[in-house]
Amino acid sequence: MSRFERHFFVCQQQRPPMAKPSCGARGSAELYGLLEEGLAAHPELWGRVQLTACGCLGPCFDGPSLVVYPEGVWYAGVKAEDIREIVESHMLGGRPVERLRYQWPQ
Amino acid sequence: MSRFERHFFVCQQQRPPMAKPSCGARGSAELYGLLEEGLAAHPELWGRVQLTACGCLGPCFDGPSLVVYPEGVWYAGVKAEDIREIVESHMLGGRPVERLRYQWPQ
Repeated sequence: MSRFERHFFVCQQQRPPMAKPSCGARGSAELYGLLEEGLAAHPELWGRVQLTACGCLGPCFDGPSLVVYPEGVWYAGVKAEDIREIVESHMLGGRPVERLRYQWPQ
Repeated sequence: MSRFERHFFVCQQQRPPMAKPSCGARGSAELYGLLEEGLAAHPELWGRVQLTACGCLGPCFDGPSLVVYPEGVWYAGVKAEDIREIVESHMLGGRPVERLRYQWPQ
């Protein structure tokens, strides 16, 4: 079995202005910080939920992007004001936030 | 369902000499490159297997560390010469390389 019940990865890819969009340029460092604060505020999750910064996840034009395993739920276009809902619904409650889920092109 | 059948994350955390050990200082960039080459050599995996660099995964004293989802298989102490086996057994065959699996302290 996996070490963690749930593992959040937050893209931190940074590209310069005029380049392809990047999650870093769209505020993903702030999102990571807010998720970290959300996790820190819930000691019952420590050791059960993991949070990791990561490189490019792929949907650069639709970021900032997150992926959560083992369920493989992808989020894109996440804003700072969405994080509280992700923490409460998904991180704490195990229920993905449907309205923020990324729909990969078929 | 997840977008990918399997997603490999390779820690690229870099710390300076004299600091706590880091996967970057132990050659994880080379491991990432070798996994990328392994994936590139197998077009049948493109779009099915994803490879992403990531920040600190936790087992800094036992790195370089990798984690593979959705199965949540952790590897640590991986060497360049182990990558071919990881590509052939796990990436292509879906069978984790048992001898390289990380045993988290209980």
